[in-house]
Amino acid sequence: MRMQDLSRASGLPVPTVKYYLREGLLAPGERTGPNQARYGAEHLRRLRLVRALLELGGLSLAQVRAVLRESRVLPPPPSSVPVSEADRRWALDRIEVLARARRWEVADDGPAVTALVEVLCTLRELCSDALLERVDDYADLADAITDFDRAGRHDAVSAILGDALLVALRRLARESADAPVPGDR
Amino acid sequence: MRMQDLSRASGLPVPTVKYYLREGLLAPGERTGPNQARYGAEHLRRLRLVRALLELGGLSLAQVRAVLRESRVLPPPPSSVPVSEADRRWALDRIEVLARARRWEVADDGPAVTALVEVLCTLRELCSDALLERVDDYADLADAITDFDRAGRHDAVSAILGDALLVALRRLARESADAPVPGDR
Repeated sequence: MRMQDLSRASGLPVPTVKYYLREGLLAPGERTGPNQARYGAEHLRRLRLVRALLELGGLSLAQVRAVLRESRVLPPPPSSVPVSEADRRWALDRIEVLARARRWEVADDGPAVTALVEVLCTLRELCSDALLERVDDYADLADAITDFDRAGRHDAVSAILGDALLVALRRLARESADAPVPGDR
Repeated sequence: MRMQDLSRASGLPVPTVKYYLREGLLAPGERTGPNQARYGAEHLRRLRLVRALLELGGLSLAQVRAVLRESRVLPPPPSSVPVSEADRRWALDRIEVLARARRWEVADDGPAVTALVEVLCTLRELCSDALLERVDDYADLADAITDFDRAGRHDAVSAILGDALLVALRRLARESADAPVPGDR
């Protein structure tokens, strides 16, 4: 198909498709003339994948490029909240206990630890203790999901979409929990 | 404290703090002169909360404002991937079965359903079946988390930080699963 058809089939404007081509997120089509190229089903699939990582996964273009290039690399979870040295030590101690109980191998300077330190310190400072008391339950759930992922030999794309799946399901369960019970007044 | 001190204590540049003031994310300080105001610990706490929702929660400024105004409203999960009518029907059927099994009350046109439809269709189109076969396991986890949340009477802020907590923990568990086993060659 031509660029116009690729644009229509993917639901993306032509300038966006051309931008992805320039950025190397989409392989060039097969040249059919000085200003024309032909695109196939694989191009359409790739555009849908880029779209899903951007929209559902919440990744940046640079992160999408990294994931597509090296399918085992996951972008770091969001972080950049300032944390005092004392709070950092408290959180690292807590993470160590939590990781040891689950036999997780943890690198103190890895991006996941950095993000988790920030989340724990934020919870301690800003929320009631209810959520902080549930951290071990949440860790058990994270462990269970990782077992699923391991069994399915998931790559980075599946992991990112798995996150999106869980968020959407959580939201659905929560909408239901918040809804008035039928028959209740 | 003065604006300068509030900026230093929060780690945010003065123009950013002033921007949050203008946007109504931060209450005005107590006027002490024509161009001066005094801020307290509550202002600092609020700035940290705004920061956490933006950075860890990945919310937009408009979403932060909505969450701070009405603490039961959760911003919709990300979505905007095009889905064909046939795919939509398939996904809605699947969601209905999944929701019925867990006694979730589901509104077909709610934002959570819209997001979930897009994720399911993307999984079906782009990923191996491994993740799609796990959707029920993921739904059980979502159900478990929602029970925690309900027991803790979590508000929207806790729910958003709970999502961030789970993502960071999942990433930690996964980093560990990907790390070489000690003693292995």
